[in-house]
Amino acid sequence: MSDTLAAAPLAPGAVIGVIGGGQLGRMLALAAARLGFDVHVYAEDADDPAARVAARVVTGPFDAAPRLDAFAANCAVITYEREHLPADALAAMADVAKIRPGLTALRTAQDRLVEKRFARDCGVAVADFLPAESVEDVAAALRELGGPAILKTRREGYDGKGQARLSTPADAPAAWAAIGAQPAIVERQVAFTQEFSVIAARAATGAIQAYALTRNSHEDGILRESAAPHASPHGAGALAATRAMATALDYVGVLAVEFFETPDGLLVNEIAPRVHNSGHWTLEGACCDQFEQHIRAIAGWPLGDAGLRGAGAIMRNLLGAEIDTVVNLAGEPCVHVHHYGKRQARPQRKMGHVTRIR
Amino acid sequence: MSDTLAAAPLAPGAVIGVIGGGQLGRMLALAAARLGFDVHVYAEDADDPAARVAARVVTGPFDAAPRLDAFAANCAVITYEREHLPADALAAMADVAKIRPGLTALRTAQDRLVEKRFARDCGVAVADFLPAESVEDVAAALRELGGPAILKTRREGYDGKGQARLSTPADAPAAWAAIGAQPAIVERQVAFTQEFSVIAARAATGAIQAYALTRNSHEDGILRESAAPHASPHGAGALAATRAMATALDYVGVLAVEFFETPDGLLVNEIAPRVHNSGHWTLEGACCDQFEQHIRAIAGWPLGDAGLRGAGAIMRNLLGAEIDTVVNLAGEPCVHVHHYGKRQARPQRKMGHVTRIR
Repeated sequence: MSDTLAAAPLAPGAVIGVIGGGQLGRMLALAAARLGFDVHVYAEDADDPAARVAARVVTGPFDAAPRLDAFAANCAVITYEREHLPADALAAMADVAKIRPGLTALRTAQDRLVEKRFARDCGVAVADFLPAESVEDVAAALRELGGPAILKTRREGYDGKGQARLSTPADAPAAWAAIGAQPAIVERQVAFTQEFSVIAARAATGAIQAYALTRNSHEDGILRESAAPHASPHGAGALAATRAMATALDYVGVLAVEFFETPDGLLVNEIAPRVHNSGHWTLEGACCDQFEQHIRAIAGWPLGDAGLRGAGAIMRNLLGAEIDTVVNLAGEPCVHVHHYGKRQARPQRKMGHVTRIR
Repeated sequence: MSDTLAAAPLAPGAVIGVIGGGQLGRMLALAAARLGFDVHVYAEDADDPAARVAARVVTGPFDAAPRLDAFAANCAVITYEREHLPADALAAMADVAKIRPGLTALRTAQDRLVEKRFARDCGVAVADFLPAESVEDVAAALRELGGPAILKTRREGYDGKGQARLSTPADAPAAWAAIGAQPAIVERQVAFTQEFSVIAARAATGAIQAYALTRNSHEDGILRESAAPHASPHGAGALAATRAMATALDYVGVLAVEFFETPDGLLVNEIAPRVHNSGHWTLEGACCDQFEQHIRAIAGWPLGDAGLRGAGAIMRNLLGAEIDTVVNLAGEPCVHVHHYGKRQARPQRKMGHVTRIR
C-alpha cells in the first residue's frame, strides 16, 4: 500500500483541507464538523458556500501553487470538491501525499481522453471514441465512427457544457467552433435506455463500500432527479467496474461512476473523483451519507454503512429560481430540504435540493 | 400574537445569530447551514466548538451588553444555546424582539424559583419546594417539607452542580456552604421511578410538534443515556403540560421539559429553553431533528415532522476520555458518532455522543 497516511486514523481536532468553495465543499465541511474535525477551505471567494461554514478560509486562484502550498501546510489531509483544478499546481505542493483522492485520480478524471483510455485499460466498456486536435480530426473521426456523435472537450466540461452534436462530417466546423476549438474527443452517440450511477467509497486499506445504484434523469444536460435504489440487470457489472477502476487508481475517498444501460450492455460515461450530485440522496437515505463517508475514508476511519435507511429516496435538484420554493417544500411531510447558501439564483444554477424518503 | 417576526419566513442567506459557542450552538449552526442560513456566533472564545463552523464569530463576555448589541445588529434573528446568560444584557439590545425564544422564557428557565412557580401557575405539578435566602431558611424549609430534601441554587446549576443533599435540619449549614451561600430553593426529594423528557417545538403561529418521549438515565448528575420512544402512562399529561407552558411563555423554538414519574403521578423537574442533550437522538432517529426544528421555528418556517424515523434510537454521551473510543465506535454498524471538536477532554465533560438506531 503506497498510501503514507494509512497507518493511523486522523484524530478529531485535526484540520481537513477542502479545495473548492461550492456546495459539495460545504456539505463535506458540515460532515467533517460532525466528526469533530476543523475544516479549512481554499476558495476563490470568501463568500463561497463552503467558506461560510469553515474554521478558516484561504482565498486565491486555484493555480496559485505557493498559496495552495501554504494552505496545505496547516492541513493534516487535503481533499477537493471538483475535478477541474490545475493538477500541476497541486502537484507542486511540498507534501503531495496529503491529497486524497490522489493526483492520479484527479488527472484521470479531468481529461476525457485519459479517462476513457483508463476505463478501457481496466477492461471496462465505454462508447466508441476518437481524439480530435483539429477540425479535420473531428470530420475524420465522425467518418470512422459513423454518426451521430458528440464532440466533447477533453477538459472543463460539466453539466452539458463544452459539448456539441455532430450528425455529418459537414457539422464539424460549427461544432469545433462551438466548443472553442480545443483538444476534444468525438464520441459515438449512445442509444442508452437509462443512466445510473454508482457512488462508492474506497478506504486506504482497500476496503470498498458502494451505495445502492442510483437512477439519474437529466434535462438540458443537467442532473434533474436521482432515485435509489435502481434495479438494473447490469448492477453486478457496474459494481465490478467501479471496484476495478477504484483499485487501479489506488483511490481513497468517495467516487462516482456514471453508467449507460444500452441494448448492447453497460458503458461507463464518466468518472467523478469526488462526492457527487447523484449521491445527495444518501444524506437521509443511507445509514452513512456520502459526505461523511468521504471524510471517513480520507481520515483513515472505518468506512460507514452504505446500506439504505428506509426503502429508498428520490432527490430533486432545485435549479435557479426553483430555490424560492424551498420554504414551502420544507412544510411537506417526509421531505428534507437543502439550500446551499448561494447568493445569486442564476438560471439552471444548482441552488439546493430536496429529498423524499420512500 | 405578539411576535413581530411572525409575518414572513426568513429567507435563506439571512444571518442567524447564536449566543454561546458550545456543542449545542455547533449543532444548531450545522443545521442552519443546511437550510442556507449564515450563522454568526457570539462566543467567549474564538476556538469554541460553534465558533469553528460559523460564518462569523464575535468574541466577548456574555454580560457585555454593547458588544451583544453590535453582534445583534447583523442578525435577522438571534437564539441562544444556553440559559445561564445575563438576561439583563440581552434585554439591553436595541431590538429585543429578534431574540427567540424570548426573554420571558429565558428568565423563567434560568431561575429555579421562578420556574417552579411558573409551572404551578400553569397547573403543572412540581416537587414541593420552598425558597431559601439564608441558612435559617434552609433549616426551616426542611422542617416544613420533611426530609430528605435537596438544596439547589436558584441560578447556574446544571449537570448536578449547585446542589446539596439534606436529611435533617442539622445538615443546613454544611449544605448552605456547599452551594456557596446563595439564593436557593429547598426541594423535597422525589422518589421517582423514571425520568423522561419531552422535546417539543412551538412555532410563532402557535403550532406545536413534540418528539417521542425520551427516557433518561443519569450518573453523578450528568445525562448518560437517552432512549426513545419511552412508553409512559403519563405521556398525555406530559404533552399537555409542555403545551401549556410553551403557550404561556409565547415560546418560539425548541424546548425541553424534564419530568419525573412517581408513584403519586407526574412532576416537572426542569424546563430548558433550548435544544437539549436528551434530544440528540433526533439527529438520526426523527424525520426532522431538534436542531433543524429549532432553526425552522425561529426562522418562521413550517415546523418539520417530529415523527420517528425507524423504530427508535438510543443516545449515549461520550464523557471525558470516553471520546477516545469514537473512531472504533464509528466502525460499528448502524452507529452514528458525533464529536464536538472540544480540545480538552476533562473528566465528565460532554465531548461527543453516539446514537444507535433501533
